Amino acid sequence: MTRIPTAPDRIVATYQIAGDENHVLARARDICVEQTVEFPADLVTDPFIAGHILGRIEGHRAITPDRYEVAVGFALEVTGGELPQLLNVLFGNISLKPGIRLRRIELPAEATRHWPGPRFGVAGLRELLGVRDRPLVATALKPMGRSADQLADLAYRLARGGLDLVKDDHGLTDQPFCRFADRVGRCAAAVDRANREIGGHCRYFANVTASADQVLPRARAARDAGAGGLLCAPALIGFDAMRSLAEADLGLPILAHPALLGAYTASPDSGIAHRVIYGELMRIAGADGSIFPSYGGRFAFTAEQCRDLAAGCAEPLASLRPIFPIPAGGMRVDRIPELCRFYGRDAVLLIGGDLHRRGDVTTAARDLVTRVIDGHGR
Amino acid sequence: MTRIPTAPDRIVATYQIAGDENHVLARARDICVEQTVEFPADLVTDPFIAGHILGRIEGHRAITPDRYEVAVGFALEVTGGELPQLLNVLFGNISLKPGIRLRRIELPAEATRHWPGPRFGVAGLRELLGVRDRPLVATALKPMGRSADQLADLAYRLARGGLDLVKDDHGLTDQPFCRFADRVGRCAAAVDRANREIGGHCRYFANVTASADQVLPRARAARDAGAGGLLCAPALIGFDAMRSLAEADLGLPILAHPALLGAYTASPDSGIAHRVIYGELMRIAGADGSIFPSYGGRFAFTAEQCRDLAAGCAEPLASLRPIFPIPAGGMRVDRIPELCRFYGRDAVLLIGGDLHRRGDVTTAARDLVTRVIDGHGR
Repeated sequence: MTRIPTAPDRIVATYQIAGDENHVLARARDICVEQTVEFPADLVTDPFIAGHILGRIEGHRAITPDRYEVAVGFALEVTGGELPQLLNVLFGNISLKPGIRLRRIELPAEATRHWPGPRFGVAGLRELLGVRDRPLVATALKPMGRSADQLADLAYRLARGGLDLVKDDHGLTDQPFCRFADRVGRCAAAVDRANREIGGHCRYFANVTASADQVLPRARAARDAGAGGLLCAPALIGFDAMRSLAEADLGLPILAHPALLGAYTASPDSGIAHRVIYGELMRIAGADGSIFPSYGGRFAFTAEQCRDLAAGCAEPLASLRPIFPIPAGGMRVDRIPELCRFYGRDAVLLIGGDLHRRGDVTTAARDLVTRVIDGHGR
Repeated sequence: MTRIPTAPDRIVATYQIAGDENHVLARARDICVEQTVEFPADLVTDPFIAGHILGRIEGHRAITPDRYEVAVGFALEVTGGELPQLLNVLFGNISLKPGIRLRRIELPAEATRHWPGPRFGVAGLRELLGVRDRPLVATALKPMGRSADQLADLAYRLARGGLDLVKDDHGLTDQPFCRFADRVGRCAAAVDRANREIGGHCRYFANVTASADQVLPRARAARDAGAGGLLCAPALIGFDAMRSLAEADLGLPILAHPALLGAYTASPDSGIAHRVIYGELMRIAGADGSIFPSYGGRFAFTAEQCRDLAAGCAEPLASLRPIFPIPAGGMRVDRIPELCRFYGRDAVLLIGGDLHRRGDVTTAARDLVTRVIDGHGR
């Protein structure tokens, strides 16, 4: 995506707005007001407020004759260094106005003092796993309703196949039929046992999507139980709860799940672009990998949207580490060569249900890893 | 909204789905799977999982020949009693599938053990204020960029006009140019002084939209500083963070702000209906009032959508208290009679910028209250 040159000391949000140039600039001026002072512009007379607090149009360019991109700069101070207020400044009130789409975020270098982003990212997670030269391979423990013992047995059999990551399904929380502490302890131990038996490096990611006061305690409990990473759904717990997990520095990488985020990308002219919500915002909020429903699965993202999203995971954003895009949502084993070509080396391929269609899951997992090693070379 | 008769022991989500009857029922079966086991349905053979964990179609009816409502029941257990997982079950993965709109939530009586909802609601907030027979009148402190002293002075002058509620603008957080502790202490004291001088009952609502680890500490600090209520934006901090505020039982009513929620209602055939996201979910998450951009202001909700939303605030939902709809977003003083007719007695009318167009704000506020007292009678 071409970048409109902008001021390096401001947060810059690029919005796509439909209409002719005059209309678009009028809407952009409205964004400058609505996202900051939310006050009749003609009544804003204080020079500090008018000159510093108000948003500022940094530039604009036509994409088509009736669609523009406008870059709006906001003073970092306006966010108070807090992520919820950053989200508010970027897209709070204007989420309620149709025809404005957030297309890109840029941060000044100073912003990383508040939001240092992923603690691992692509390089850090590769380092943990000792896998440097191919896409990573992951699966999910499911279905909900199985006991902790049954899920641990499944985790063992999957890890025996040599997968890199085995994660909880995001719907596994702390239900009466499968308690968090029970599940996480058993699954971590099961994956550890499989690793010892085959000389593997598989990491088990525990789902810590939970009530506000339980997110951090469960993450600490997962670490203490030997989990190798964390999973959470930021739309369910709040993006800042995920950031607080990264800030807690538990030594565990974090994968973000897209549950409840779909509405943001549902309309092409409103909402938040794939690049931003599954890439840039996930990085700002500290995820090391971003799970999303890939094109060609049982959801509706297009290949172009997936490419946009992967760019948001990888392209420069202040000094935040690049993270893994994690295509999922009905991926099949026979699509591995294509997925390897499309997403390149720095992706995690997440195959769920399809592994269970192929008889013994250990054999199916081993075959999957082999296909990724082969498929990556092509 | 007509209700499809359903089982009283399940959470029932009603979805609007476009298509003919066969297509709609196929999509509904997919919802039953996607929102729970997320696993190939033909591989689900365990009777506990197939009979209890899987979602279940409870009924369906045509709205038009090519649009249906389908009620899907979920076992309460599947949520583990946690709000993030309730959101996930209701609309997590399927938010990523176009053409499904969540239209209504029903809860079994037992659910209120986990989610007792608003601590005050309409009756409780009226009791605190001593105002029983008319809509309440509120305004916001703004613009961002003013100092704590300037905002406190404004709060004083507004409260002198006899308003019921004066709230922080939702963009006032803890910025370097106006610190939370400073602002809240001064504003609470200013409103208190005005109340003593005129024999008023105005309550100051402090914005506690903040980083995950700061929401509760700021709420406690606000209570200790004498604030009369709390404001937060659940899409910015997570719905469960708002619920945790209600659970903390600080003796302060909570108003919910709609920032970042707009994407959920942007498309008529996808997302979450106004009734649900601004009404039912706000109640489940403990808000006592739900702020939204009313029809006829500077946003885009229609009168019909506002009516749907107000119904979600008021109509029976397990034993959760009804809450106040709070129309806002560019409301003007001269629309008071119309707003009173449209929203009825049990609403909070929130007028912001327009009060500042009318010379002295105390006089403008007093005039506003008078108009509401008069307008309500008509």
